[in-house]
Amino acid sequence: MKSIRGTLSLLAIVVASLTLAHAQDPLPAWNEGATKKAITDFVTKVTTPGSPDFVPVPERIATFDNDGTLWCEQPMYFQLIFALDRVGKLAPQHPEWKTKEPFASLLKGDVKAALAGGEHAIAEIVMATHAGMTTAEFEQIVKDWLATAKHPIYKKPFTECVYQPMLELLAYLRANGFKTFIVSGGGIEFMRPWTESVYGIPPEQVVGSSIKTKFEIRDGQPVLVRLPEVNFIDDKTGKPVGINSHIGRRPITAFGNSDGDRQMLEYAQGGTGARLLMLVHHDDKLREFEYGAKSHIGTFSDALMTEARNKHWTVISMKNDWKTIFAFEK
Amino acid sequence: MKSIRGTLSLLAIVVASLTLAHAQDPLPAWNEGATKKAITDFVTKVTTPGSPDFVPVPERIATFDNDGTLWCEQPMYFQLIFALDRVGKLAPQHPEWKTKEPFASLLKGDVKAALAGGEHAIAEIVMATHAGMTTAEFEQIVKDWLATAKHPIYKKPFTECVYQPMLELLAYLRANGFKTFIVSGGGIEFMRPWTESVYGIPPEQVVGSSIKTKFEIRDGQPVLVRLPEVNFIDDKTGKPVGINSHIGRRPITAFGNSDGDRQMLEYAQGGTGARLLMLVHHDDKLREFEYGAKSHIGTFSDALMTEARNKHWTVISMKNDWKTIFAFEK
Repeated sequence: MKSIRGTLSLLAIVVASLTLAHAQDPLPAWNEGATKKAITDFVTKVTTPGSPDFVPVPERIATFDNDGTLWCEQPMYFQLIFALDRVGKLAPQHPEWKTKEPFASLLKGDVKAALAGGEHAIAEIVMATHAGMTTAEFEQIVKDWLATAKHPIYKKPFTECVYQPMLELLAYLRANGFKTFIVSGGGIEFMRPWTESVYGIPPEQVVGSSIKTKFEIRDGQPVLVRLPEVNFIDDKTGKPVGINSHIGRRPITAFGNSDGDRQMLEYAQGGTGARLLMLVHHDDKLREFEYGAKSHIGTFSDALMTEARNKHWTVISMKNDWKTIFAFEK
Repeated sequence: MKSIRGTLSLLAIVVASLTLAHAQDPLPAWNEGATKKAITDFVTKVTTPGSPDFVPVPERIATFDNDGTLWCEQPMYFQLIFALDRVGKLAPQHPEWKTKEPFASLLKGDVKAALAGGEHAIAEIVMATHAGMTTAEFEQIVKDWLATAKHPIYKKPFTECVYQPMLELLAYLRANGFKTFIVSGGGIEFMRPWTESVYGIPPEQVVGSSIKTKFEIRDGQPVLVRLPEVNFIDDKTGKPVGINSHIGRRPITAFGNSDGDRQMLEYAQGGTGARLLMLVHHDDKLREFEYGAKSHIGTFSDALMTEARNKHWTVISMKNDWKTIFAFEK
């Protein structure tokens, strides 16, 4: 009896320890391995007082690309899906679109033909759908769209098509004194209405592409009106420029997934002290998508892969490093 | 004996209470009165849970102009003094300046003649002294200048020519969950090197005017080079634009001192809920400077004074509301 009781007590302690260990794992959606260890090792060394790599809290700046890094970007950028939906909704007010490209093709449901016009066509669509209203009105349009729109494949709200391991990573970094920022090629005002509730990142920590705005008194109210004119493109060499403009410090860790993030990682690495640079690689055909060098969306070129190897950037394999991709999988 | 001891005990309690009350006053450099009360009343109501005016922490955004609001701007903007000092320092590398305005006049010590060229002359001086180097080099130049330069009248470092009541106000707001931002017409990269140590405002919470920058690999290092081209002027109608771009929310309280801050206060007031809008009025000839409607620097026009009255903005009298202006006075 005594011996059984002793064994049971021991077992209880072991179970309790395991439960505790599990509760203490800040990154449960990450498989154990070199990638996860690179993250926890980095955080440990920059936050341990007295460590040669210690970084004071105010300098713990972490920047994240959004499309393909924090949320999915396939079968096309979510903001483009939003814009296409808006064209449909606005069409009755624009009879001229019936014969004007790229709108005519879009309204016939031929997205491919509409986008054949390349950047110019996309710019036309973006300006027609993102400008002309006040910033407050645009915020409401984005919120209304997100409340009902669904991902064409997952059939889930777009704000649920976010990567669970990255949500954990954001929370883990913040729990360790990091300030987390988005630095995305996407529209800054398209992201801000939902980044706080979804990622825990407030509007003032979102950096992105923008169109110009103009201060006006409209019906006695001071407002900002969105103009059909590009202000800033926060992509490629624009990312370090955007980081400097909004943050004013070099990040000590940066996360991306495509050629558009190259200069952000280079810029972050250019500072002195410990650095953690990572690229998400979309290599999970089964659970998400498999794309890379040949993809037009989220291109991860061979040159980027070579640079990552040479500069000791970590390439995250979604297939091998992530236990869970989306919370809704479970 | 007993009665004396009793009286002494009572006195001790009174003294202790007074000391405690003093220790608890978060704004000791402010004289008691309507202005100070407007601040503490506002903070109390927006931070009291259950109050109809309660504002959640993430929305407690406070914006401050810098020149003339947080630090002195006389006898001329400190950044202009910096630029003029730089012209002198750089002159040996620019023999052509000897015959080229506005530099020729400057080098002869005739600031008035140099600035007679107006905005164009100032732009020439700014571009010649603020562009061409990397952002890191410029940061060092600003730090080096601040380490030795002295205010021409106070004979103190410029970073000591900051208003003690405003330092207390910044700290008081932050202690109550506010996020404090600078929104200044001054150069964003001229302010960032020192706002954290002087005001407790980190670089990512500084909004200002800027020139363009360009990402480059220089000697193998990724850097941002400052270009002689205006990017953004954060003044007047530019202030709401800058606030939206950097912060993405309307401030619930805003502080300025001149016509350049008008639209920032209007924009802040345009939101719903309780608001605190204040303008510092330079009416203390003895301890600081007396200027207003007719001043070219920090113009506080009669129209602004009228608008302040009509819209219930508080005008801070430096003479009457501030017990101390500069810490070095004591």
